[in-house]
Amino acid sequence: MTDMSDILHIEVLNGPNTNLYGLDPNGPYGRLTLADIEARCRNKAELLGVTVRFNQSSSESVLIDWIHEARGKAHGIVINGGSLSYTSIGLMDAMASFDGPSFQVHVSNVFKREAMRHHSFISQAVTGCLIGLGPSGYEIAVEAIVQRLRAS
Amino acid sequence: MTDMSDILHIEVLNGPNTNLYGLDPNGPYGRLTLADIEARCRNKAELLGVTVRFNQSSSESVLIDWIHEARGKAHGIVINGGSLSYTSIGLMDAMASFDGPSFQVHVSNVFKREAMRHHSFISQAVTGCLIGLGPSGYEIAVEAIVQRLRAS
Amino acid sequence: MTDMSDILHIEVLNGPNTNLYGLDPNGPYGRLTLADIEARCRNKAELLGVTVRFNQSSSESVLIDWIHEARGKAHGIVINGGSLSYTSIGLMDAMASFDGPSFQVHVSNVFKREAMRHHSFISQAVTGCLIGLGPSGYEIAVEAIVQRLRAS
Amino acid sequence: MTDMSDILHIEVLNGPNTNLYGLDPNGPYGRLTLADIEARCRNKAELLGVTVRFNQSSSESVLIDWIHEARGKAHGIVINGGSLSYTSIGLMDAMASFDGPSFQVHVSNVFKREAMRHHSFISQAVTGCLIGLGPSGYEIAVEAIVQRLRAS
Amino acid sequence: MTDMSDILHIEVLNGPNTNLYGLDPNGPYGRLTLADIEARCRNKAELLGVTVRFNQSSSESVLIDWIHEARGKAHGIVINGGSLSYTSIGLMDAMASFDGPSFQVHVSNVFKREAMRHHSFISQAVTGCLIGLGPSGYEIAVEAIVQRLRAS
Amino acid sequence: MTDMSDILHIEVLNGPNTNLYGLDPNGPYGRLTLADIEARCRNKAELLGVTVRFNQSSSESVLIDWIHEARGKAHGIVINGGSLSYTSIGLMDAMASFDGPSFQVHVSNVFKREAMRHHSFISQAVTGCLIGLGPSGYEIAVEAIVQRLRAS
Amino acid sequence: MTDMSDILHIEVLNGPNTNLYGLDPNGPYGRLTLADIEARCRNKAELLGVTVRFNQSSSESVLIDWIHEARGKAHGIVINGGSLSYTSIGLMDAMASFDGPSFQVHVSNVFKREAMRHHSFISQAVTGCLIGLGPSGYEIAVEAIVQRLRAS
Amino acid sequence: MTDMSDILHIEVLNGPNTNLYGLDPNGPYGRLTLADIEARCRNKAELLGVTVRFNQSSSESVLIDWIHEARGKAHGIVINGGSLSYTSIGLMDAMASFDGPSFQVHVSNVFKREAMRHHSFISQAVTGCLIGLGPSGYEIAVEAIVQRLRAS
Amino acid sequence: MTDMSDILHIEVLNGPNTNLYGLDPNGPYGRLTLADIEARCRNKAELLGVTVRFNQSSSESVLIDWIHEARGKAHGIVINGGSLSYTSIGLMDAMASFDGPSFQVHVSNVFKREAMRHHSFISQAVTGCLIGLGPSGYEIAVEAIVQRLRAS
Amino acid sequence: MTDMSDILHIEVLNGPNTNLYGLDPNGPYGRLTLADIEARCRNKAELLGVTVRFNQSSSESVLIDWIHEARGKAHGIVINGGSLSYTSIGLMDAMASFDGPSFQVHVSNVFKREAMRHHSFISQAVTGCLIGLGPSGYEIAVEAIVQRLRAS
Amino acid sequence: MTDMSDILHIEVLNGPNTNLYGLDPNGPYGRLTLADIEARCRNKAELLGVTVRFNQSSSESVLIDWIHEARGKAHGIVINGGSLSYTSIGLMDAMASFDGPSFQVHVSNVFKREAMRHHSFISQAVTGCLIGLGPSGYEIAVEAIVQRLRAS
Amino acid sequence: MTDMSDILHIEVLNGPNTNLYGLDPNGPYGRLTLADIEARCRNKAELLGVTVRFNQSSSESVLIDWIHEARGKAHGIVINGGSLSYTSIGLMDAMASFDGPSFQVHVSNVFKREAMRHHSFISQAVTGCLIGLGPSGYEIAVEAIVQRLRAS
Repeated sequence: MTDMSDILHIEVLNGPNTNLYGLDPNGPYGRLTLADIEARCRNKAELLGVTVRFNQSSSESVLIDWIHEARGKAHGIVINGGSLSYTSIGLMDAMASFDGPSFQVHVSNVFKREAMRHHSFISQAVTGCLIGLGPSGYEIAVEAIVQRLRAS
Repeated sequence: MTDMSDILHIEVLNGPNTNLYGLDPNGPYGRLTLADIEARCRNKAELLGVTVRFNQSSSESVLIDWIHEARGKAHGIVINGGSLSYTSIGLMDAMASFDGPSFQVHVSNVFKREAMRHHSFISQAVTGCLIGLGPSGYEIAVEAIVQRLRAS
Repeated sequence: MTDMSDILHIEVLNGPNTNLYGLDPNGPYGRLTLADIEARCRNKAELLGVTVRFNQSSSESVLIDWIHEARGKAHGIVINGGSLSYTSIGLMDAMASFDGPSFQVHVSNVFKREAMRHHSFISQAVTGCLIGLGPSGYEIAVEAIVQRLRAS
Repeated sequence: MTDMSDILHIEVLNGPNTNLYGLDPNGPYGRLTLADIEARCRNKAELLGVTVRFNQSSSESVLIDWIHEARGKAHGIVINGGSLSYTSIGLMDAMASFDGPSFQVHVSNVFKREAMRHHSFISQAVTGCLIGLGPSGYEIAVEAIVQRLRAS
Repeated sequence: MTDMSDILHIEVLNGPNTNLYGLDPNGPYGRLTLADIEARCRNKAELLGVTVRFNQSSSESVLIDWIHEARGKAHGIVINGGSLSYTSIGLMDAMASFDGPSFQVHVSNVFKREAMRHHSFISQAVTGCLIGLGPSGYEIAVEAIVQRLRAS
Repeated sequence: MTDMSDILHIEVLNGPNTNLYGLDPNGPYGRLTLADIEARCRNKAELLGVTVRFNQSSSESVLIDWIHEARGKAHGIVINGGSLSYTSIGLMDAMASFDGPSFQVHVSNVFKREAMRHHSFISQAVTGCLIGLGPSGYEIAVEAIVQRLRAS
Repeated sequence: MTDMSDILHIEVLNGPNTNLYGLDPNGPYGRLTLADIEARCRNKAELLGVTVRFNQSSSESVLIDWIHEARGKAHGIVINGGSLSYTSIGLMDAMASFDGPSFQVHVSNVFKREAMRHHSFISQAVTGCLIGLGPSGYEIAVEAIVQRLRAS
Repeated sequence: MTDMSDILHIEVLNGPNTNLYGLDPNGPYGRLTLADIEARCRNKAELLGVTVRFNQSSSESVLIDWIHEARGKAHGIVINGGSLSYTSIGLMDAMASFDGPSFQVHVSNVFKREAMRHHSFISQAVTGCLIGLGPSGYEIAVEAIVQRLRAS
Repeated sequence: MTDMSDILHIEVLNGPNTNLYGLDPNGPYGRLTLADIEARCRNKAELLGVTVRFNQSSSESVLIDWIHEARGKAHGIVINGGSLSYTSIGLMDAMASFDGPSFQVHVSNVFKREAMRHHSFISQAVTGCLIGLGPSGYEIAVEAIVQRLRAS
Repeated sequence: MTDMSDILHIEVLNGPNTNLYGLDPNGPYGRLTLADIEARCRNKAELLGVTVRFNQSSSESVLIDWIHEARGKAHGIVINGGSLSYTSIGLMDAMASFDGPSFQVHVSNVFKREAMRHHSFISQAVTGCLIGLGPSGYEIAVEAIVQRLRAS
Repeated sequence: MTDMSDILHIEVLNGPNTNLYGLDPNGPYGRLTLADIEARCRNKAELLGVTVRFNQSSSESVLIDWIHEARGKAHGIVINGGSLSYTSIGLMDAMASFDGPSFQVHVSNVFKREAMRHHSFISQAVTGCLIGLGPSGYEIAVEAIVQRLRAS
Repeated sequence: MTDMSDILHIEVLNGPNTNLYGLDPNGPYGRLTLADIEARCRNKAELLGVTVRFNQSSSESVLIDWIHEARGKAHGIVINGGSLSYTSIGLMDAMASFDGPSFQVHVSNVFKREAMRHHSFISQAVTGCLIGLGPSGYEIAVEAIVQRLRAS
């Protein structure tokens, strides 16, 4: 991570179907769209004096590629793997190759939902997990990364 | 679904390896190619006075995107998820976000094959399943969607 | 099947509790009674120029006997095994002894219900499965049998 | 249940092998025969001013038929499904279609016996379970039904 | 049990969270508080000419101690172990050390609830189980103990 | 068994689908029909100076009733439970109530077939098992019963 | 919760062995003691204008009692159930009886540790989970509760 | 098997601990020693005009070697694998390489014993199984082999 | 462990229901009471020139607290966790925080009892296990601790 | 495969995260990059007089497409599916449609790693597996394919 | 055991790979060789006035034979079955045929190692188990046997 | 390994039933006998300037002894454990005590065969696995060992 700029940079990655947030008013994800969540993350980043890149893809390989790119370019990762959290070993392996602090976010409390959502491979490769805090899980994750980086 | 045209429109989506149908004469899928199946679906659609869009991809994310696009544009979905039927929670979540009638099709009777093909996540998010009816499963699914829409 | 008459004949068999269809308006099976379903099957059969025998029993052995009788007398079988679908190996063995095309019907989408309804022994011994298409599953099954027999 | 008489009526149904009660003095079921149990139920019913019909069959379908008949004719059901308690989804489905209070009875404490007797499908479709109270479980069940009906 | 008085005495023990009965009107336990249930048990005991001690604790060890004390002092035990029924081998071992008749009570029908409530260790160490009879399960258990003791 | 005649009597009971033996020349059961097997049993019985009653039913309850009738009337039982061997606890319980020697017969070697046929409840309630000896399993079972009875 | 004071109050509850935090410098919990964590929570509470009560016990029943007391007295709960998170249904049931927002905290990322720590009953009964954020998980949980209460 | 003599020859192989038969009078194997059983096999062989070799070893490899030797030298094998029946895939593989008829014998009814004795790998590689017939299982197996060989 | 006296000190801790030892003469624990066992431990300690503290509680939290107290005060721990051995992760975690040698004792051979007693969480956090040696398991454990401490 | 040129051609396909090989010096994959491995494969191919195409993608669908393209164009396939080996049925199905020899390569010995890496769907659809041979597994696989093709 | 000499004799049996003890200084078994352990056992035996025979074999059948020989010749058995402890039912059966006291020894605490070492068949057939006490487990076992024999 | 000669030496060990290779022309192992395979290994060794010892035994203990002997005498081991690969922990433990490179060979692709052959204990204790490469797996393993030794 030799050539990273002085300003801390954080990648925020979103997996399958998270682009529907806020579009299904009766679904388990509330009324904020992913764009709303991005705006809140940007506000938080500005307050903290860091930069964020906010991306969404339903593709495991695109997400893996973004994580690979984050190596050497970003200081931390926030990842909401969506349904890939439960099934993708590839996403877990990619996250395990990232050295900085990283947090997994689930907007809803997945432990209150179907059993298939109770185990996330990705949880084993991140610093910590923020589950069921709604959209503010993203902002808290951004803040937690900055705190960790500035404390070390 | 406010701005949909008056003519009913149905998306027919096909998952991994279905593009090999008919190319392995000794395989479990018979002699019709996917193009043959598409032609039969178009004939059926014409008879019923509806439109179909027929697509194939081996990519989970492309299939998810097509389902997302179908929201607000299509009145029904026919989906043969191929091997993703058994492993993709993302496809299930996407289908669950679609309001209209939807049917899962398997050309072969998967219950006569290996145990790993006996459970489909996607089955929990569709109106019904047509399994082992061969290529005509597609046409029946198209017809079932039209019947449901016209009956309601 | 040497002494079967020229007219195609199809047995439609119904298992435990299917005789309650339409009587529990809030149950998972809709408003049509089994008699209504029989009527629709007979209409479909008449249109196709075939005969159907429509029977119901909650007894595994009666159903097995009917399947045995169908050997040599019927050209196809439609079977809704009800709860015996999930537990009866005997029904599966009987169906496996029938040479003609056969289809399993479930009126509701059993994959959306309790886990104990997700595995049917009987599915392994039929040509295909029509699950969650409501009462029209029966008519489609009758038609699929006729198509298969006339195509071969 | 419009045409039911004013007097409360309760069906008492007994499953496979319960007709051997009292005949195997060293078995797990004690010394009372099923006829003795019936007599005690009739005494209890007379005391409570209700009628009971007491039946036994080792046939799943006969038991299902009796439950179907009870719809609209009986106000409550006491059922000792015997070994069918553990294996019959059909019996569970039939009981689930009965609106009145119903109680499952096991004469012996099945939880002290082999593991295969520890799970009863039928338990999920009744009001409650009386297990290991010996023959008096029947009388208590009759009384509990009457209490529930008179309290409501 | 040499120094027990002539009057039959029964311990009624209640486990974790049962002290909330009646306080959550929408919960699975109805509108009677534990004090109401105690009053009904005392009425029943008076009618039968026996004494009861009624206790509640959310502590496994306190419950075990009470069972130990009951050895030599009480003639029967009614136990609603609450959630400890499902997880405590210690409670089961303590109950197994008690010689007199004992009954497990669950106010709600646990077999209709989550799978984690379908297996009770404690069931293997009691005379019988009264599940889903509501608060009257307690009174019936008291009566069943007295009947057993007076019959023997 | 006070009023049994001096001549030893053996019941031979056959379960679901065994009446198809010999009718499916390519099936796993060989070319002998059940009538052929009965004839061979009768020959063997005559040679041994005993009587046999040979019965078939696909009904669990009819088989249970025959076992109940055998109590006090027959000295031994040969039972081929067919598919009920794998699923019926009722048949196991009925056999457990029979005091004399009893043998389970499977014509084919079920351990070479699907896993669902590898565990028979009924095996736990018989003296022994003859599996995969073809139709001669019946004759050997008859002979084994006579040997046991004459030896004791 | 009618008689609660105007100032928001939050209970912070800690389970078995959390009192060793910071005492095992090589353990998985870091260098802060529980007293340090309490101090940080109090600072955060002061900043937010709310009160906190901070308690620790290794006793399931004491923790359950504290949760019961919180009903009507506290507006939110932060709970680190320690090892009881994985095994206590009683703690889950108690938390489920609390109406306000509640968050589960694990100081370490339990998903990186032994499999027995991957499933927490308690997760099903809280608003959300903060896992692996170290001691700051507590402060974030306090803040999340206040945000939720002030937003609603 | 070109150079085998005209007289049929059968190998009888016995596995671990079978050499204790008859020495533990209270054990599950009765009063006959393995020498007694050998004598009965020899008598039976003499009657049938065939030869037998009777061997015992507690060594898997010795048993495998004997089976290998039997290829080309013996016309049939009777094998009581003892505890190796349940655990040895090597014994199963060796038996699968033998072309002639072969029968597995268990003196006791293993299905009435601990669960670890309910599954035998070896059962999948033999013609059939004689379980729980006591020592006469050996003689019957010898006879069954001769019948099969003379019938073919 | 800086301020520990020169004399070696060992804690002996006993879990739920061990206070019944010797009181159930037909139970699996023999005729010695826990007081007898304590006396034998004290004799052994005196012989070895060490001190022991001997305690019993059926409470997980009390046992955990005693283990915490032993940190810095005791040089070794003997623990018979009773039924908590099988279910308490908290006890395991507490023992894992103790640096000195520790031994788990079970008076009876738990591997000969029910399957639920075959796995002890606590075994993973102790130096070794003495199972089925009866009360002398305690004395041997005390001696083993002293040997280890004096050898190091 | 009519229009394939005379020179043997082999596809070498690499799955998710294999593009990180050699970049994590402490990871389980050694110091060679994927480019190094490609160079070694090309050397080997040149020596053998065959051509190779070497590709990497973290996308299941891209890998499936490359396998489809290999049908008719390539004579053999070497595939290191990375994490998709463990989870992708689609990759397995695609490989099963390829007629030529194919080998699965894992650089590290996956059987020494986490349990989730011990089962590969893909293993069932290839000729053989080279696991834990490091980068030379690729070269050996190329050579094994050529040997097989030239031998046939 | 009529002709055993007056001096107590104990067999000490060691299974596969125990002959490597002390040869792998970094392995889980410490620095003592099996010869060292034998010497310590002989010292202990001399002190106690008993004889020991100390043997090692990696062969299940040799170990079984030694146990058989011990019947009638030895008064007790100490057995470290090594890896056969976990997999051999034959060793368990042989030990079960031995009447005297017997103890299983594991030098290391197997419960701290891989899951495959947590269940020993042999544990069910011995008097007790000494696990993780290092080489002194042998001496303690010898002493425990002598105590038991002299006490009875 | 101080006294090993300068010439590299490799042990090739073969387990149960491998001595039948080539003798069952229709079996899964092809037409080469074990002697043929040995010849090919010797050729390969000669080319590489190393020595091989080639051995076969169906005995677990003989194989373990050969591995023990290889310690200090051989520089590498090739092992085809046959069926013991799947069941022997002893073989795994022995291989784990060998310091040099070692490779497991399976002639057939075991992942295409029965599930019981999909997990090999031995795989966890070797450098790598060559599965389904036919007899050439041996030669490749020999070469891989030499490469590793010469590279280090």
